[in-house]
Amino acid sequence: MNLEGALGRVRVVLSHTSHPGNIGAAARAMKTMGLSELVLVNPQCEFPDPVALARAAGADDILAAARVVPTLAEALEGVVFAAAMTARRRELAVPMQWARGAACELVQMSAKGTVALVFGNEIYGLSNDEVTLCHMPVKIPVSETYSSLNLGAAVQVMSYELRMAALDPGLPPVGTEFEPATHDEIEGFYAHLDRAITASGFFNPVSSKRLWPRLRRLFGRIRLEKDEINILRGMLSAFEKK
Amino acid sequence: MNLEGALGRVRVVLSHTSHPGNIGAAARAMKTMGLSELVLVNPQCEFPDPVALARAAGADDILAAARVVPTLAEALEGVVFAAAMTARRRELAVPMQWARGAACELVQMSAKGTVALVFGNEIYGLSNDEVTLCHMPVKIPVSETYSSLNLGAAVQVMSYELRMAALDPGLPPVGTEFEPATHDEIEGFYAHLDRAITASGFFNPVSSKRLWPRLRRLFGRIRLEKDEINILRGMLSAFEKK
Repeated sequence: MNLEGALGRVRVVLSHTSHPGNIGAAARAMKTMGLSELVLVNPQCEFPDPVALARAAGADDILAAARVVPTLAEALEGVVFAAAMTARRRELAVPMQWARGAACELVQMSAKGTVALVFGNEIYGLSNDEVTLCHMPVKIPVSETYSSLNLGAAVQVMSYELRMAALDPGLPPVGTEFEPATHDEIEGFYAHLDRAITASGFFNPVSSKRLWPRLRRLFGRIRLEKDEINILRGMLSAFEKK
Repeated sequence: MNLEGALGRVRVVLSHTSHPGNIGAAARAMKTMGLSELVLVNPQCEFPDPVALARAAGADDILAAARVVPTLAEALEGVVFAAAMTARRRELAVPMQWARGAACELVQMSAKGTVALVFGNEIYGLSNDEVTLCHMPVKIPVSETYSSLNLGAAVQVMSYELRMAALDPGLPPVGTEFEPATHDEIEGFYAHLDRAITASGFFNPVSSKRLWPRLRRLFGRIRLEKDEINILRGMLSAFEKK
């Protein structure tokens, strides 16, 4: 696997960041490990900002190229796989991965297209909706008595693990016949499913609030392929015609 | 291997640090991963300092307990093993280790006593004398086109790798009969050897400047044991009596 190629297809997404210094530190951390694509979701601070630039040291090219978007959904457009950094256990979430295993999976999936690694706000992290939008929650193993990992430091650890995973022969290559569904295709399926089960009366948005988290937990674990999406949506279309 | 025990026996040494913020960031990075002992060699900034305290977040206990010493030799007193972080290749140094392998070796040696991990100044790193005083040079794999790793970020990566190594079953346990020589014992041997080879006429401090780096490279790779020091020094004493 090509090192620069794999790391060049990792998109780092910082959601609702409060401190411009952390954006700069993240850019520097990324660049030391060979990453380059940064997307900011609705930053809670000025951007561009001189403090970010100062902390970035020589990584100002990453800041200059960074895109700012209003929502995580837009930040994830076109990715084939997205991982969400989270410090706490989330009810009904897809099973959590440790940093090292997650980095291997991200690098492996990067052979198929752009992958995203999403970091939340310094204080409150990612929202449940944001974690749900991703396909894998990831946790850095920290001390149980003091888990206050700085945002820039978390980006550094993950960027380092991604580089190590890309340097490593890693997991056996996935078969060439395997074509993962993109994030957009999976969301398209969810939307289709939602219409279908609402129309069918199975799903009532008021009385069955717990249903969608469970469905996403179920389908989120599968790593759906393109063909499978087609099959599922074909099934739904067939049901709808009934 | 006991996680807290192993990590509790890792001493982080920051030599000639210029920015108090990096000292605070290092303390925070250490604490997130379960490390606690910090020693500062001749800091090139005020310490204690409010900037260090601010960047440490909740890790102020580590700063409060940090010792300040004038030389690296004093910082290494009592350790059984010391690793030196270095970004560049050093001529005649003991073979360099990558971060991950070094963390495994440090955790393994920590079963025998306190081990040290030494970080140099933000701009010029460690001096050659300081690297020579340690038993293993360590490098974090960084991008070849941009290697500007922040000091706090380097401490974060190494603290994370130490925690991962301590969590891992790691290398097979070393035999109980194995008793490594301490840093002081090894330096005592070097001093003895220096006297002996100077007295013997083999070593001339003026004409053979390259000899000591080579000797340290040789003995530095062995991971000398207590018994071996006794044997070597016994040999030297025997020569001296001649």
